Amino acid sequence: MSDQVAETDANPETDEAEAYVLGKRDVAAILYTVEIEDREKLIELMEPLHAADIADLLEQINTFDRARLIRLYGHEFDGEILSELDEGIRDEVVSLLAPKVLQEAMRELDSDDVVDIFEDLEDAQQATMLGALDDVDRAVVEQALSYPEYSAGRLMQREVVMAPQHWTVGAAIDHLRATPEAELPDQFYHIIVVDPRLHPVGNVTLGKLMRSKRDTLLTALMEDSFQIIPATRDEGDVAYAFNQYHLISAPVVDEDGRLIGVITIDDAMAVLDEEHEEDILRLAGVGESSLSDRVIETTKQRLPWLAVNLLTAIAASMVISQFEVALAQIVALAVLMPIVASMGGNAGTQSLTVAVRALATKDLTGSNVWRVIRRECLVGLINGTIFAVIMGIVGIIWFGSPALGGVIAVAMVINMVIAGLAGTGIPILLERVGVDPALASGAFVTTVTDVVGFFAFLGLAAAVLL
Amino acid sequence: MSDQVAETDANPETDEAEAYVLGKRDVAAILYTVEIEDREKLIELMEPLHAADIADLLEQINTFDRARLIRLYGHEFDGEILSELDEGIRDEVVSLLAPKVLQEAMRELDSDDVVDIFEDLEDAQQATMLGALDDVDRAVVEQALSYPEYSAGRLMQREVVMAPQHWTVGAAIDHLRATPEAELPDQFYHIIVVDPRLHPVGNVTLGKLMRSKRDTLLTALMEDSFQIIPATRDEGDVAYAFNQYHLISAPVVDEDGRLIGVITIDDAMAVLDEEHEEDILRLAGVGESSLSDRVIETTKQRLPWLAVNLLTAIAASMVISQFEVALAQIVALAVLMPIVASMGGNAGTQSLTVAVRALATKDLTGSNVWRVIRRECLVGLINGTIFAVIMGIVGIIWFGSPALGGVIAVAMVINMVIAGLAGTGIPILLERVGVDPALASGAFVTTVTDVVGFFAFLGLAAAVLL
Repeated sequence: MSDQVAETDANPETDEAEAYVLGKRDVAAILYTVEIEDREKLIELMEPLHAADIADLLEQINTFDRARLIRLYGHEFDGEILSELDEGIRDEVVSLLAPKVLQEAMRELDSDDVVDIFEDLEDAQQATMLGALDDVDRAVVEQALSYPEYSAGRLMQREVVMAPQHWTVGAAIDHLRATPEAELPDQFYHIIVVDPRLHPVGNVTLGKLMRSKRDTLLTALMEDSFQIIPATRDEGDVAYAFNQYHLISAPVVDEDGRLIGVITIDDAMAVLDEEHEEDILRLAGVGESSLSDRVIETTKQRLPWLAVNLLTAIAASMVISQFEVALAQIVALAVLMPIVASMGGNAGTQSLTVAVRALATKDLTGSNVWRVIRRECLVGLINGTIFAVIMGIVGIIWFGSPALGGVIAVAMVINMVIAGLAGTGIPILLERVGVDPALASGAFVTTVTDVVGFFAFLGLAAAVLL
Repeated sequence: MSDQVAETDANPETDEAEAYVLGKRDVAAILYTVEIEDREKLIELMEPLHAADIADLLEQINTFDRARLIRLYGHEFDGEILSELDEGIRDEVVSLLAPKVLQEAMRELDSDDVVDIFEDLEDAQQATMLGALDDVDRAVVEQALSYPEYSAGRLMQREVVMAPQHWTVGAAIDHLRATPEAELPDQFYHIIVVDPRLHPVGNVTLGKLMRSKRDTLLTALMEDSFQIIPATRDEGDVAYAFNQYHLISAPVVDEDGRLIGVITIDDAMAVLDEEHEEDILRLAGVGESSLSDRVIETTKQRLPWLAVNLLTAIAASMVISQFEVALAQIVALAVLMPIVASMGGNAGTQSLTVAVRALATKDLTGSNVWRVIRRECLVGLINGTIFAVIMGIVGIIWFGSPALGGVIAVAMVINMVIAGLAGTGIPILLERVGVDPALASGAFVTTVTDVVGFFAFLGLAAAVLL
């Protein structure tokens, strides 16, 4: 640790450009020690690195180097590295670890981390890991798995610091000092005050506890901001609550409202990060994905969305084929028609992204849905008109036909208003019927803007120009 | 607060569907009290709400209602509501508040919150707010503004709990008890241990402090995970460090390495959220945006990207216009050409989103850049081949021409490999030259896939079929 501090201290400005990035040279130095099988030097180079950085390193090197490094590193392998590792290569790494190393690694972790690692493993690796756990940990993992995936019950840690309502500051401090280290969470920032039925009634921060007189009642020190989380609540909603209400930790309760665990903000932050990643990738038509996935896995992940896109593209082509007569007579139509579709597609994607994001942050609700839809259509109308004028002029200059300019202008306005309507309406409808709007909106919206764009442009052209 | 608890407690399952969303009925009830100007009932309804929820409410209602509500609510208006409010309507709300109410609201806030509100206001409102601050707060704001925008210096709070290296647990606890409430941060979780030059050397958690003997040295209790943040570091990198290293708070130092403030995880989480929002919106070609923006503002935000898209669409059209002869002879080309461009565009967007995301999380580095580019091209080749076969067959069935089927198949493979190359290479190049890849990649990549798609398909068609 002291190495880290010294380094940050010595050159605080050089690391501006790529703060927190493991240098190419560091990676090369580590791989060199693996190459020459210099175990001591490897351990020396890895020692100052945080588990999260070691995990990043393992993700960035190739499979062959990864296996050699892990074998050479041996029993130095820390449980936290597994915890930080991308799910994509966790299976691989678990299967590389000697059973004893794995057992050792698991023993150091908090219950929530063990569960987190366990639930993402494939069956074979799950069996390996269950074998490596001691009885207590195995019971914890099995209990956690009884809660739904992505629920607060899976996210929470079981180690909780609680105190009855009638306790004073002195009683709480004495209790804390008397509790053995192993029964306390790794880190904790609050004491949860509970009533006789174990229902949480409030939080007391350690700072307040430490500064108060010994005879003060805990209930007199409780925080303003307090949120109780049911064990079945979706982890995305949990992350939202932490961010919305600036929580540091929150008690988790079972269906009877009894305290069964606690979620801390660092876990909530990790969930927020994952949810964002999911949204951003889903919007682009990529399922789960990571840089350490192999070619075949990546190909499979990308394929479904491309298949959907092929269907919508064929649908658009069928619209075009209805106007073969017009296209055969006026080639300019073929030249200009992608512009109308493309502008609609872009405007639709803009509206849709804002809507998906607003739904995720719970800013788009029953109270403002119609105002937002109206706004998006109006924005489409205004921008559509501006670009219609520009394209109308381009059409006249390029092809010398005012009628053609007029047709493309009108089609553009129509398509961009529809883009605003579809871009907002489709995600809202999907959300209402319980489909993730990030996942499915894109396909629907571009289908609408393609079909409407080609139909409006070619249809008007056929009516006006032929 | 007790109302909140009771509510969550009473119906833990009814709020599953829309956890943390203010019900339409609640909003209507509040607006009704505004309508009939029943101030007491309004205050009663607002009382159980968290400041963040009140801010959401204000964002969701229209300008007219907002003004009426704020006027009726009067001096109940809490500083934290301003803090939680979307920047888009903060100006409007500040200008609605009576000077005295504003002054009162500011007084309750921590220094980082005051700075955060202040820096986003327009000049007129900044003047109003400076007038409302007392001398100490004004000095704090002015000092914070001396750090670059979006830097750790702006994000940190000045209230710090520190202790010299030679102190024992007992000395630290006595010091904490003797310090007046006002000089301590609202919430704190660590004591920062500093050397005689005020350089931070480690963190001690309050939990450890409380459980240790009075004569233990603080240096013996310091955490493993410790990161020092220079005041000039970008806030995005700060948020990354918190997430990567599971930090709860981190000391901020000036250019001489002296402790000047502290950043806590709740602020880092808010930054992470904002950075994600920015990325997701930029990828869709929307600048800053929020649901509470007016039509004109929204129109302006969307326009630049649409203008860029118009240029790239025209560029693609110019490629098409080179093949007017072929298009005039074979109408099927006009029908099929959008499919090739569309599939390339989608594959490119997939690659580009994965690359932009990996750059943001620092997973794509010098060590693995070539491996990732090679992977994306290979994925493009495999998926391209699969869809080429499908489209070749569709082409033959639909238009009865094996040659046409062959042409579209080959063009598809070419465009999807290029999509993988451009989708990965362009964001990496942009990042290298210092342009945000999320902002600009989309335009470049779709231009490439449109141009290559039309050129490959029509060019091959002209060569083979004519």
